[in-house]
Amino acid sequence: MTRHKTAMTDQTQHNASQNPDSAAANSMWGGRFSESNAAIMQAINASIDVDKRLYAQDIQGSMAHARMLAKQGIITGDDAEVICKGLAQIKTEIQEGRFVFSQELEDIHMNVEARLKAIVGEPAGRLHTARSRNDQVATDFRLWLRDQIDYSVGQIDKLLTALLDQAEKHAETVMPGYTHLQPAQPVTFGHHLMAYVEMLTRDKERLQDARKRLNRSPLGSAAMAGTGFAIDREATAAALGFDGPTRNSMDAVADRDFALEFLAAGAICLIHLSRLAEELVIWSTPSIGFVTMSDKFSTGSSIMPQKRNPDAAELIRAKPGRLLGAFQTLAVVMKGLPMTYAKDMQEDKEITFAAADALDLSLAAMAGMIEDLTAHPAAMRAACQKGHLTATDLADWLVRELGMPFRDAHHVTGRVVVVADQKDCPIWDLELADLQSVEPRITAQVFEVLSIDASVASRRSFGGTAPERVKAAVAEARARLNV
Amino acid sequence: MTRHKTAMTDQTQHNASQNPDSAAANSMWGGRFSESNAAIMQAINASIDVDKRLYAQDIQGSMAHARMLAKQGIITGDDAEVICKGLAQIKTEIQEGRFVFSQELEDIHMNVEARLKAIVGEPAGRLHTARSRNDQVATDFRLWLRDQIDYSVGQIDKLLTALLDQAEKHAETVMPGYTHLQPAQPVTFGHHLMAYVEMLTRDKERLQDARKRLNRSPLGSAAMAGTGFAIDREATAAALGFDGPTRNSMDAVADRDFALEFLAAGAICLIHLSRLAEELVIWSTPSIGFVTMSDKFSTGSSIMPQKRNPDAAELIRAKPGRLLGAFQTLAVVMKGLPMTYAKDMQEDKEITFAAADALDLSLAAMAGMIEDLTAHPAAMRAACQKGHLTATDLADWLVRELGMPFRDAHHVTGRVVVVADQKDCPIWDLELADLQSVEPRITAQVFEVLSIDASVASRRSFGGTAPERVKAAVAEARARLNV
Amino acid sequence: MTRHKTAMTDQTQHNASQNPDSAAANSMWGGRFSESNAAIMQAINASIDVDKRLYAQDIQGSMAHARMLAKQGIITGDDAEVICKGLAQIKTEIQEGRFVFSQELEDIHMNVEARLKAIVGEPAGRLHTARSRNDQVATDFRLWLRDQIDYSVGQIDKLLTALLDQAEKHAETVMPGYTHLQPAQPVTFGHHLMAYVEMLTRDKERLQDARKRLNRSPLGSAAMAGTGFAIDREATAAALGFDGPTRNSMDAVADRDFALEFLAAGAICLIHLSRLAEELVIWSTPSIGFVTMSDKFSTGSSIMPQKRNPDAAELIRAKPGRLLGAFQTLAVVMKGLPMTYAKDMQEDKEITFAAADALDLSLAAMAGMIEDLTAHPAAMRAACQKGHLTATDLADWLVRELGMPFRDAHHVTGRVVVVADQKDCPIWDLELADLQSVEPRITAQVFEVLSIDASVASRRSFGGTAPERVKAAVAEARARLNV
Amino acid sequence: MTRHKTAMTDQTQHNASQNPDSAAANSMWGGRFSESNAAIMQAINASIDVDKRLYAQDIQGSMAHARMLAKQGIITGDDAEVICKGLAQIKTEIQEGRFVFSQELEDIHMNVEARLKAIVGEPAGRLHTARSRNDQVATDFRLWLRDQIDYSVGQIDKLLTALLDQAEKHAETVMPGYTHLQPAQPVTFGHHLMAYVEMLTRDKERLQDARKRLNRSPLGSAAMAGTGFAIDREATAAALGFDGPTRNSMDAVADRDFALEFLAAGAICLIHLSRLAEELVIWSTPSIGFVTMSDKFSTGSSIMPQKRNPDAAELIRAKPGRLLGAFQTLAVVMKGLPMTYAKDMQEDKEITFAAADALDLSLAAMAGMIEDLTAHPAAMRAACQKGHLTATDLADWLVRELGMPFRDAHHVTGRVVVVADQKDCPIWDLELADLQSVEPRITAQVFEVLSIDASVASRRSFGGTAPERVKAAVAEARARLNV
Repeated sequence: MTRHKTAMTDQTQHNASQNPDSAAANSMWGGRFSESNAAIMQAINASIDVDKRLYAQDIQGSMAHARMLAKQGIITGDDAEVICKGLAQIKTEIQEGRFVFSQELEDIHMNVEARLKAIVGEPAGRLHTARSRNDQVATDFRLWLRDQIDYSVGQIDKLLTALLDQAEKHAETVMPGYTHLQPAQPVTFGHHLMAYVEMLTRDKERLQDARKRLNRSPLGSAAMAGTGFAIDREATAAALGFDGPTRNSMDAVADRDFALEFLAAGAICLIHLSRLAEELVIWSTPSIGFVTMSDKFSTGSSIMPQKRNPDAAELIRAKPGRLLGAFQTLAVVMKGLPMTYAKDMQEDKEITFAAADALDLSLAAMAGMIEDLTAHPAAMRAACQKGHLTATDLADWLVRELGMPFRDAHHVTGRVVVVADQKDCPIWDLELADLQSVEPRITAQVFEVLSIDASVASRRSFGGTAPERVKAAVAEARARLNV
Repeated sequence: MTRHKTAMTDQTQHNASQNPDSAAANSMWGGRFSESNAAIMQAINASIDVDKRLYAQDIQGSMAHARMLAKQGIITGDDAEVICKGLAQIKTEIQEGRFVFSQELEDIHMNVEARLKAIVGEPAGRLHTARSRNDQVATDFRLWLRDQIDYSVGQIDKLLTALLDQAEKHAETVMPGYTHLQPAQPVTFGHHLMAYVEMLTRDKERLQDARKRLNRSPLGSAAMAGTGFAIDREATAAALGFDGPTRNSMDAVADRDFALEFLAAGAICLIHLSRLAEELVIWSTPSIGFVTMSDKFSTGSSIMPQKRNPDAAELIRAKPGRLLGAFQTLAVVMKGLPMTYAKDMQEDKEITFAAADALDLSLAAMAGMIEDLTAHPAAMRAACQKGHLTATDLADWLVRELGMPFRDAHHVTGRVVVVADQKDCPIWDLELADLQSVEPRITAQVFEVLSIDASVASRRSFGGTAPERVKAAVAEARARLNV
Repeated sequence: MTRHKTAMTDQTQHNASQNPDSAAANSMWGGRFSESNAAIMQAINASIDVDKRLYAQDIQGSMAHARMLAKQGIITGDDAEVICKGLAQIKTEIQEGRFVFSQELEDIHMNVEARLKAIVGEPAGRLHTARSRNDQVATDFRLWLRDQIDYSVGQIDKLLTALLDQAEKHAETVMPGYTHLQPAQPVTFGHHLMAYVEMLTRDKERLQDARKRLNRSPLGSAAMAGTGFAIDREATAAALGFDGPTRNSMDAVADRDFALEFLAAGAICLIHLSRLAEELVIWSTPSIGFVTMSDKFSTGSSIMPQKRNPDAAELIRAKPGRLLGAFQTLAVVMKGLPMTYAKDMQEDKEITFAAADALDLSLAAMAGMIEDLTAHPAAMRAACQKGHLTATDLADWLVRELGMPFRDAHHVTGRVVVVADQKDCPIWDLELADLQSVEPRITAQVFEVLSIDASVASRRSFGGTAPERVKAAVAEARARLNV
Repeated sequence: MTRHKTAMTDQTQHNASQNPDSAAANSMWGGRFSESNAAIMQAINASIDVDKRLYAQDIQGSMAHARMLAKQGIITGDDAEVICKGLAQIKTEIQEGRFVFSQELEDIHMNVEARLKAIVGEPAGRLHTARSRNDQVATDFRLWLRDQIDYSVGQIDKLLTALLDQAEKHAETVMPGYTHLQPAQPVTFGHHLMAYVEMLTRDKERLQDARKRLNRSPLGSAAMAGTGFAIDREATAAALGFDGPTRNSMDAVADRDFALEFLAAGAICLIHLSRLAEELVIWSTPSIGFVTMSDKFSTGSSIMPQKRNPDAAELIRAKPGRLLGAFQTLAVVMKGLPMTYAKDMQEDKEITFAAADALDLSLAAMAGMIEDLTAHPAAMRAACQKGHLTATDLADWLVRELGMPFRDAHHVTGRVVVVADQKDCPIWDLELADLQSVEPRITAQVFEVLSIDASVASRRSFGGTAPERVKAAVAEARARLNV
């Protein structure tokens, strides 16, 4: 078999050939090791391909650490300056694509430190004072995730804006409201879209709550016990925008709650998007025809020239799988791990990065689709002819006007529906005589509540679908959400 | 095959035999149905075995609804009073085990309503005015979950108390701190336990954030479009202790975020407990012997008379599986569901109830285990003899006293460790000459930092393991958490 | 808070009050324990509420074990006879509902053994020779799951029969075939249903492969090391219908692969059912109207008298969540467990039992729905008017008759579709002139391939949708599957 | 915020700048589209970064298809030859890294086809006759997964060999056998390792069963309805090594069972590895010290120079999370999808590829670790001194020699254990008088069964831990597994 085993084998061979002297053990921790790592070990152990995405946060954290060390007199001010200058140079090298990452140096922390040593010499060796990779990576990852949350919240705001714009535009556009995908009662398209505004508002709050909880600095927890150097954890926390330092050094290096909480919140957000995506798919099937997605968000078929497929909606519908899978993955990793850091936790970043990308991509694509969406009010109104959508209004009228208990009114209405089905018309097209054959006390006044528009207009209870309510809800949401 | 198919077949047969007239269609909605449900349909559809657990909340919600209807003049005050009296009687019947639940009546809502009709007659039929089972069940479930969260938070508080008590007691008890389950640096047992205090504090906050978000009343959203009756949603919300009504009627009946968020928070909490449980299992294996669990939380073997098994810890270790499974189950159910209510959502309660029980049971069992836990300080101290736990202290001394860059100090220390391994002793039992053979500038002063106790005492950075820090952390936590 | 904490608290109190002498330690293993278990420990530890479902298998296994012990001369023939007679009596007591299960006796094994002691006295104490609960429960659970798989396979067969009957009936009923929920090419409804026959056939095979793998007897592995008694494991394996004994005693008591494999296979099966359920939900929305589910599998609304909801389909659509959750739960439990048995594994049965019920219920409900399903061929045919379903046939004609490369034909057809959309008609209603305006070489012969029926009839490739193919496929499947 | 949003933004910009004429719609399906895709749409839609890994299978499938078309007279033999030569050239270009992949061409299929057109001109346009991307990708993915399974099975074989070698070497090395991580009975290290041979044997069988089921050819199912061209699906199936064609064209393009089944089987396999990994981590903590992993599979610490961490074992322990997450992801994607192909399914490959890599890496790393593993028989034997490991042997002796029922013997032994604990010695170091103080009938003969070696030697039941049994099991496994 001539199997193409790209991912692993190639990379490993690449390293092996690139580093003829890989027999030398790792220079950061290898002092007492007599043998170098196996190639397969390097492949499974190295995280640089993944965690290089943390480079900006790693450098930011190291600068804050170096300056604090100098302020506390643990290293000299000169050393700190040299270190920070070197780190700034490295940041530029990475941003300009000139930095050569090495898999043997395992991770972003050691890649940066090794390069720093090459640039500034001995002072580089003083940077790791009162610090361990354990608190360093926890700090980097929190900084990154904080940025990520801010970015995702911004993406949600864009989608909220798109939804609010469409909701406002369609505050009076009637359509069937469904339960069980069966027509239930008429609603407005604007009201329907506002349901998603509510969901996304909660998503935003959940992300913000997660941000609040993650915003403590692990820096200075060192390996896991704290340090004997007279460091100032408040200072580094403040310099990095944290609300303060974490309270227990062991928890600080062993905790990945923040990632789990982000993944759970992201999964719930994408479940919301998947519901809207499912609706877009259903609404754009020709038999329904409520909406058309723009060409920008549709694709064709390689074999069927007439096709116009809602691919973007389908891809968004699929994405909760990613977030749910990522949450499950990290949960499985963390479950049952004894204190404190264990290498198992290295799995955290790859899955969180991929999940964050899936979240952002879905939010952006959905915002684009909603902005571009063309609704078809005529098709929506036509669909209201099926399913006797104002049956509840009839029952309510019986309660209100005839003083009938609701349960009895429900039964009377049920019988009216049977009559209408026999005549193959909606209940509002029945003759008064038809209605009276079921309940003699019904008067012609009933027709005032049986039309689609009357029904919608009547639902003025707070949170209801009446156009005036929808317009008020849009205005209130704009003000509250500041979007 | 004479298979014992208890769960399903028996129940169904039971119902079939109990209700000879089951041919009659459901009395609440069956008006226009010509044929009754299949037995298998009843088995898959009925939720009463599960949702009867909501009886108190259902009755509470109905009372608030009836009173509001009366206040708004939608029903008479007399009717409301009769209804509430009937409901109070039903509550007593259920609490005293005298209520006969019927599977044909599908769910708790219809069981209660049918019984109400039997007790009070016609007014019962007026209770469902301006309400649907869709907003009713959403209200009941939120009320139940709010109580559940309050209960779980109380359970967490009990566990926090147990942890703080043990942490205080063992603020000076030294033990090896581990990373990768390898001895890393000495810590105190109290510090170790305080890591869990941090985790549980976050768990508590997460549950409280979830409570804050769920505490809006869906009541009055009716089927999904709101209602034309002049109801007062603020009033029912206030009567039920909600912060206010939900803002969109469609979202209100289609949303189960609150359950998902609770399940995710509960899963993370149980992951924390599983980590502690794993440690208890490891600590109580005879080769480690750091702790003994009380007889109350241990079991024996049916074949090996000498066994003493940490069953409670193992069961707690397993329980995150339940919560993670429940979260995945509900997420799978909700993903891609179009608006608004769909019967798929009926799956929500059974899994949430079971998950809540698993959470509470685990918290209670862990609190009991921790309260009863006997630590063995001598065994913990003895274990500190292995693994050169103060190697970092030596490296730090080299940095501090000799001005060596940390990276160089790390290498020197690595060579000292090799010497100690050759002599089969901890580094603090080496002769000064041994140390000087590696680095001549080392002086006898170094031994002041090499002892286990000196190391622990030195970690005075905020969040560090020094006993004084641990004591301060316990005191601070007691004050902050009010436990 | 007057919280109703049914599940746990009540049960525990119940036990406490029922057993005033619960201070006495467990009689099976408690010899050297000085204190009895905590109430909370009993609540978390006891499994009898769950594993009593294994009673028949437990008794079956004990009988086989006793007879083997006698045959090997380890106990007397008289003892074996007395034991088996006692066990038979216990089985009857349980089946007749006369057996009193005790939570203090923890599980089904000890409940049965304690009762056996009460019935037969001393010989009961000889039954546990050369056996442990570890191999006993593994044996019971495998026996139960083997029965379960046989039952589920039978359920699949019933559903296959229902699908084949409908497929045969509708081998010529044309409907739009969809990709992306967009009409793509015409197919027959029979062909569509036959896709599910393929899926369920694989499900059946997967379950049968799982059965093959589980069918080894753990009995005689004892606690985990095997036994020094001269037992005959082949004999007990044969007596219990196993293909032979397991090969390693440690694996035998630590393995739950069989449950994981069943849950994975069951989850995949329910994913298939969820796809069909989704289609039934979509097909029965009035704008589509392809099918009607019988009253037996539909429900109404408590507020909207006109509703007819596809509840059974929705519940089935939700059920994969249960199986996926169960698989994840057990996987989380088993991950990282050291050899051999750990109490964590006690979680296995409750989730497997519940998952099996969900599987069986879904299969039975789907079989009933499909049997009862009324298809609406006219609506299906009418829907074929939208979406230019024979566009591929036009492209294929251009390839075949004009020798055009497919890619060019695809482009020509795309332009024809644009013309038809402008004229608001399907491509087969265009004039020849219209077609020739795009590609002059097109002749009137093309209309022979452009009708829905011609298209369907032409797809005669193996596995294609031509009615003759579908009929042949139904016949072949009936013969192969023996249903 | 200067956020580094690599993954998405950069890629998109890159494409935008690279393709100034991206305004032109997709050349394969874009005929009737008036507007090109949004950049965000391209980012979410394009799969080429992922599915280029299928290039070899895609080319293999196209060659088989072209040759069959020629054999059936649908294209000319010359065209087929030209096409196959062009495809061979493309394969070389890709293998040599000279092929330029385009994101605008979406996927591997269109990248290859576009390049083919550039190389061979018009005949390239004939290749897509009687084929769609739907059956093409299903074919490619199955071919790839078949190769993957063969590769993974080979990896399992290597690990089996390593385990068998160590098991043979340690067939007589005694160690404590554990349940609940408490010493239970003595076993041999070889026996312990053979438990994993059993697990991996089942894993292999599960993968082989999955392979058997996936090995049907979807090619010729076209978009979803089959084709009117007179193709020979048996011929392409045979040419590609399939056992035959799939039986239903709709199922063929809508099915991803094969990936789900692979992921479930892979997850179970990695759960097994995680159990062994957990044991390696525990065994290598200094207080236990049963094994040492080679330097090749250990790492050090950046702050603690003395550390030697079992990183490889920890990473393997974490990997089931990936497979479980991947299974969950794909299951969520597939759940509830209506027939036939939907774009959601595009998620299948990325997660399956990553999962396969995680599986292979874990198997390879574990094989390396086991090969290199140094066991410490002295430490294992010393650990047998704790936990009265032969208590069951004492109980069995009482049963055998004194005719005591096992339950009574269990109680007597329990009391002996208490005496031994009071004297702080193992039960075999008690005086005869001590034993007789509990049960006077005990004789000195009992000491013959109380030693660790006697205990182990006595467990000769099939599957037991006696060294002779272990050796026989190794030999039997080598013969059966052919490794």
